[in-house]
Amino acid sequence: MNAEIDQNAKPLSPDLLQKMDAYFRASNYLSVGQIYLYDNPLLRVPLAPEHVKPRLLGHWGTSPGLNFVYVHLNRVINNHDLDMIYVTGPGHGGPSLVAHTYLEGSYSEFYPNVSQDEQGMKKLFTQFSFPGGVPSHVASETPGSINEGGELGYCLSHAFGAAFDNPDLIVTCVVGDGEAETGPLATSWHSNKFLNPEYDGAVLPILHLNDGKIAGPTVLARIPHNELDMLFRGYGYKPYYVDYDSVNGDTMALHQQMAAVMDRAIAEIKAIQADARANGLKERPVWPMIVMRTPKGWTGPKVIDGLKYEGSFRSHQVPVSETKTNLDHLKILEEWMRSYKPEELFDEDGRFLPELEALAPKGIRRMGANPHANGGILLRDLRMPDFRDYAVDVPHPGATVAEATRIQGRMIRDVITLNEEARNFRVFSPDETESNRWGAVFEVTDRCLVADIKPDDYQISHNGRIMEMLSEHQCEGWLEGYILTGRHGFFSCYEAFIHIIDSMFNQHAKWLEVTRHIPWRRPVASLNYLLTSHVWRQDHNGLSHQNPGFMDIVMNKKADITRVYLPPDANTLLSVTDHCLRSRHRINVIVAGKQPALQYLNMDDAIKHCTAGAGIWEWASNDKGGEPDVVMACCGDIPTMETLAAVKILREQFPELKIRVVNVVNLMVLQPSNEHPNGMPDKDFDSLFTTDKPIIFAYHGYPWLIHRLTYRRTNHKNLHVRGYKEEGTTTTPFDMVVLNDLDRFHLVGDTIDRLPQLAGRTAYTKQYLRDRLLEHKAYVHQYGEDMPEIRDWKWTDD
Amino acid sequence: MNAEIDQNAKPLSPDLLQKMDAYFRASNYLSVGQIYLYDNPLLRVPLAPEHVKPRLLGHWGTSPGLNFVYVHLNRVINNHDLDMIYVTGPGHGGPSLVAHTYLEGSYSEFYPNVSQDEQGMKKLFTQFSFPGGVPSHVASETPGSINEGGELGYCLSHAFGAAFDNPDLIVTCVVGDGEAETGPLATSWHSNKFLNPEYDGAVLPILHLNDGKIAGPTVLARIPHNELDMLFRGYGYKPYYVDYDSVNGDTMALHQQMAAVMDRAIAEIKAIQADARANGLKERPVWPMIVMRTPKGWTGPKVIDGLKYEGSFRSHQVPVSETKTNLDHLKILEEWMRSYKPEELFDEDGRFLPELEALAPKGIRRMGANPHANGGILLRDLRMPDFRDYAVDVPHPGATVAEATRIQGRMIRDVITLNEEARNFRVFSPDETESNRWGAVFEVTDRCLVADIKPDDYQISHNGRIMEMLSEHQCEGWLEGYILTGRHGFFSCYEAFIHIIDSMFNQHAKWLEVTRHIPWRRPVASLNYLLTSHVWRQDHNGLSHQNPGFMDIVMNKKADITRVYLPPDANTLLSVTDHCLRSRHRINVIVAGKQPALQYLNMDDAIKHCTAGAGIWEWASNDKGGEPDVVMACCGDIPTMETLAAVKILREQFPELKIRVVNVVNLMVLQPSNEHPNGMPDKDFDSLFTTDKPIIFAYHGYPWLIHRLTYRRTNHKNLHVRGYKEEGTTTTPFDMVVLNDLDRFHLVGDTIDRLPQLAGRTAYTKQYLRDRLLEHKAYVHQYGEDMPEIRDWKWTDD
Repeated sequence: MNAEIDQNAKPLSPDLLQKMDAYFRASNYLSVGQIYLYDNPLLRVPLAPEHVKPRLLGHWGTSPGLNFVYVHLNRVINNHDLDMIYVTGPGHGGPSLVAHTYLEGSYSEFYPNVSQDEQGMKKLFTQFSFPGGVPSHVASETPGSINEGGELGYCLSHAFGAAFDNPDLIVTCVVGDGEAETGPLATSWHSNKFLNPEYDGAVLPILHLNDGKIAGPTVLARIPHNELDMLFRGYGYKPYYVDYDSVNGDTMALHQQMAAVMDRAIAEIKAIQADARANGLKERPVWPMIVMRTPKGWTGPKVIDGLKYEGSFRSHQVPVSETKTNLDHLKILEEWMRSYKPEELFDEDGRFLPELEALAPKGIRRMGANPHANGGILLRDLRMPDFRDYAVDVPHPGATVAEATRIQGRMIRDVITLNEEARNFRVFSPDETESNRWGAVFEVTDRCLVADIKPDDYQISHNGRIMEMLSEHQCEGWLEGYILTGRHGFFSCYEAFIHIIDSMFNQHAKWLEVTRHIPWRRPVASLNYLLTSHVWRQDHNGLSHQNPGFMDIVMNKKADITRVYLPPDANTLLSVTDHCLRSRHRINVIVAGKQPALQYLNMDDAIKHCTAGAGIWEWASNDKGGEPDVVMACCGDIPTMETLAAVKILREQFPELKIRVVNVVNLMVLQPSNEHPNGMPDKDFDSLFTTDKPIIFAYHGYPWLIHRLTYRRTNHKNLHVRGYKEEGTTTTPFDMVVLNDLDRFHLVGDTIDRLPQLAGRTAYTKQYLRDRLLEHKAYVHQYGEDMPEIRDWKWTDD
Repeated sequence: MNAEIDQNAKPLSPDLLQKMDAYFRASNYLSVGQIYLYDNPLLRVPLAPEHVKPRLLGHWGTSPGLNFVYVHLNRVINNHDLDMIYVTGPGHGGPSLVAHTYLEGSYSEFYPNVSQDEQGMKKLFTQFSFPGGVPSHVASETPGSINEGGELGYCLSHAFGAAFDNPDLIVTCVVGDGEAETGPLATSWHSNKFLNPEYDGAVLPILHLNDGKIAGPTVLARIPHNELDMLFRGYGYKPYYVDYDSVNGDTMALHQQMAAVMDRAIAEIKAIQADARANGLKERPVWPMIVMRTPKGWTGPKVIDGLKYEGSFRSHQVPVSETKTNLDHLKILEEWMRSYKPEELFDEDGRFLPELEALAPKGIRRMGANPHANGGILLRDLRMPDFRDYAVDVPHPGATVAEATRIQGRMIRDVITLNEEARNFRVFSPDETESNRWGAVFEVTDRCLVADIKPDDYQISHNGRIMEMLSEHQCEGWLEGYILTGRHGFFSCYEAFIHIIDSMFNQHAKWLEVTRHIPWRRPVASLNYLLTSHVWRQDHNGLSHQNPGFMDIVMNKKADITRVYLPPDANTLLSVTDHCLRSRHRINVIVAGKQPALQYLNMDDAIKHCTAGAGIWEWASNDKGGEPDVVMACCGDIPTMETLAAVKILREQFPELKIRVVNVVNLMVLQPSNEHPNGMPDKDFDSLFTTDKPIIFAYHGYPWLIHRLTYRRTNHKNLHVRGYKEEGTTTTPFDMVVLNDLDRFHLVGDTIDRLPQLAGRTAYTKQYLRDRLLEHKAYVHQYGEDMPEIRDWKWTDD
């Protein structure tokens, strides 16, 4: 099975073996205790119904396997003074990680009330999955965790993200065979093609096959050994096997097998690293991994009420139920717990025996106390260039044309350069860095690929800082792991396809929200998204590439965590980018265009505008500080251009009309100030948007989001929003806005329809609008591109 | 490379080889023509700038590979009279599929204006990626397509979904090496563990390695051959290789290699099927697959302006640009197109030469005309049980307790039974069928697993109709493929984790919307979701398992396509389920509880209530048909219970208060009738919700969705919505609603605060509410479960 390992090797001395098994039993005991016990934690008296919790919540099935791994990791950490963290894919195995951090002492350091004595053990048990206590998962409350695992699929991406640029770190990642069925996990094995042993740390994946999910068998547990072996060799790993059946279920023999495999894996990791660091990386190494096959609910009750439990999906959650009312079941529970012999593990005071506790690593080598798993304490500020240095020269509004994200890319390039030495900043993208106009970064770094690089390859190296794999899941997971271990990053993505990671965003937002309230967790860098190739410039790809709904998802999360910016041009984009890279513990979404577009604000004005979040563009307005007849509001680059073009037409047609142009950069200002810290006070909102004049709001995304944010505002009844209404196909850029009624001509029509003072005077204008739209359609259908007067339209100051 | 195939085999006669290569050249010619030409389709005159389109949009890179495959599939279809469809993972290769369906004649049957002559060819070229024309992708407009491929990752899941229960169908699925990096695609290879050759059809995956994505190399193209081979053997396939380099780039030799491999693959598929159908399925077969390695942009320009194009990522989209202005480039384009020798392929009239067209299959054997790819024409109604037969007896409201989804599961069970023979209904779930209380289905079928089944396995067989893999992507992809080929299904999922497939939902909704307007596409069955284990009953898992935001995503799509139902009890759930299974071409989302809960409506009342979508619950109201003082509205099972409990308290405390209870089942009725076909006319809405009385609305999801739907309604200013505000942890069910201010006590407080007529009389009640909440918190923190009076609360008719 493990051809390169002596099958008779016994790396563990009899004494150490006994102690490690005792440690394993202690962690199993504490795992069961957390799920079941309300009192009598050391079973000093016979177990009675009142000692059991009223509601039994938790997952036993995966816990003993996780416990077994932890004991063995402790040994190699001690033997080699390893810097190691433990990423728990089967995150519902909360009892296990809590048990181990308690045994090693890190838990009580973070939570002094859960002390290492009988009283503390009672608290440990009671609090688990109990109101006011701790979640049943390996949540952010659990010391050592960077991966909650509430939602499955991301543990291995997180682990690799943690290992990048951490050359001394080994990230052990247990992958459950349930999680292994998810898409994100299935592709994340390929992360080894992006990890460079010369500069990065190592990931040691442990695939845990326990055969069962909630109610059925798992795929990887049911394929033949030779397929399993080829699969992981095909993924580029060298699998080592730890197999309960191969030792006929003899736990002591399994300890020896695991110890031998673990020694081998660590030795190979060290050899790969030593070679790469001495000689440079020649070719992608084949990293070791471990495939561990143990029964689900191992060491738990074998049979209950005639049904198989140990080794069955029935052990997934709480094997013995109704222990308060069924005395037979209570007895099964007591026998089960006593089978771990707690009296041999804990002293009179309920303290773990010193000779056993001695097996745990010390200080920050304990996996519950490793600072990498509380990245905020390692976080260093980025060295930042002065974003003003990249300013586009805008002598007057509309005078210049630039590609906003291309300008931003130069700033990102210099962020990379300035932090090259610190190696704490990376860019992640599903093969879109160049397409999204961040090509400048390739002046100073490359795409990372730790695989075969060919002579005519371009901008690719083993040591690039641009992480491109065509998997939004992988990009997001790597970035999350990178951030949670105290580094910085940026994710650039096509706007529509960021929906692919909606659910990952959701989990990360929850993690940030919860950790804000955990005193020992330090703030981490913000997760920054650039969303471009956006809905209005999918004229070449059409409907399938159009979706501005990620913002709707983001707005569902807690106000303290999320920010959404839609800078209308390059200088505002630079200002926003600077702000996002300096912020902490947030999720910042920036939506910006990559096509050549009009530039409106010089850098000073851009900074002022971004600081306010929204404001009047005096230069486009003619209300001269007085009360306007109408407010033309806009948010997003294309809606801003169409609004300005509409204003031009209106001012030509109705010179006496007082028009105010309001631009919104920070979507959050639209909310009431009691809903969001960026929310604009009602007074200010009313003075921007008036209390009774029509507001024609041209918005980048789905229009109802604006209504949702503003329905409590005084003038909401006069608010008319245009935005994306799910119309699109392969067409021209201008036709895309026409299809959604967001174009200048429709905006003019919307406006004059809402101005009673124009009654009787709009016929000419309406004919003009109809003519322009017909002319547009005819031209586009004949020539396949927009009319020159549309393409080359410019704002000109009057 | 292909050990089992004679390397010197030449399955193609010289004549056939020449013809097939001519066919290949014709399809390449038409592919290039679509991307570039506006006129002069047959190059009868030298190419001039005015013959070229003003905007060049499209993807050349993948097209020649797709063309090569199509030619060879045509041959085996003819040889074996195969029933085959072609799923195009590299969906941006639209030119290829359009070219082939045009050559085989199916395109012109669907689009008679694009005729098989010079004029038609000009139209074919002009319309491509042109305003008013056709999208550049293999979109729903493309005959033979069931997978747009705008978003990557799902082709193989779609292919397997199409093959289930279609024993005579072979689904060829080309997987691009870019798409192969996505998570969903990486796990979808494991679909072979769920396909039964006895009853299902076959999938022939063709992994197309062309080495490049948009701007960089692909992972699978850059791993050594032995790893690639092991990877796919590990996935359970037998790979055959077609490799450009292995024949030194000799196209004719590659045709022979492909033909030999294709013959072998078809023979193996037939042998596997014959064996399973004669002898029953003994063990999972190892299906053949093809790995095809050809240069990106094969047969295109090799070098342009000194840079490599053929065989490089630079061929991804439009290799030669500026052909209107750069005459050297125009010359390259002309030489490229003439290299296919159009004069040898098309006759004087521009018609494909008959001896070449003869290579195409005939009638519905043409892949563009195969009815499986236009599933609506094969769709048969489900045989449906009478949903009234499963009714829960509800003698009076609140008299009964039942688990709604368990009742629904019995109906689903009988749908399975009634359609057992037709084999056109399946259930899909990520391992949650039992957990979601649909256990009754296991009385008549099993979980499907075409892998090792062990003696003590339970409810598992090779032929089960319950498709469980722990991948929401896989479930969704299979179901979409199953539906689009004319069958029916249901997806049951935890509410929070349906967000994992947000983006797939989005693409499917767009597909349905577009196909509504394509006359030759027939309506397919609706895609039905049961979302349960919902936000209010995640007291055991906590925050990470809470997210009711999928409804927000769904509401962004076109009104014709989406429906969202929140039935408050079992009988309403049955009625809604019946409606959804009979509906067509929609996406129906049903959110329902699985826990024991109060039942309110008998079947007659449930049917009436669901038909209306929302209505007054007279039995809970005391406004006796008059104008109420307050409207207590509710939507969702838990909000409904809390509202009723609040009404009880209010009526005790303020007996003279006139309260109207309105329950909403169909979320769409809240919208204005001009926004949604289910939208309630303003008149009816006003008569339900009044025009001026306070409305306290208890809603299942994020509260602002209700505001977004109702902001235009007369009484919106008096609407106060409670819902999920992102608070949760491991706690008790009632505490979960308390954390979000949705509980009965908060609802009473909200109500009395909005009733000026109670001014000066609410102090006692407010004290009562505070006391109850304190009592609740104290009890929960002591006992870990809800107080008996909460747990056992019942509505009682007065």
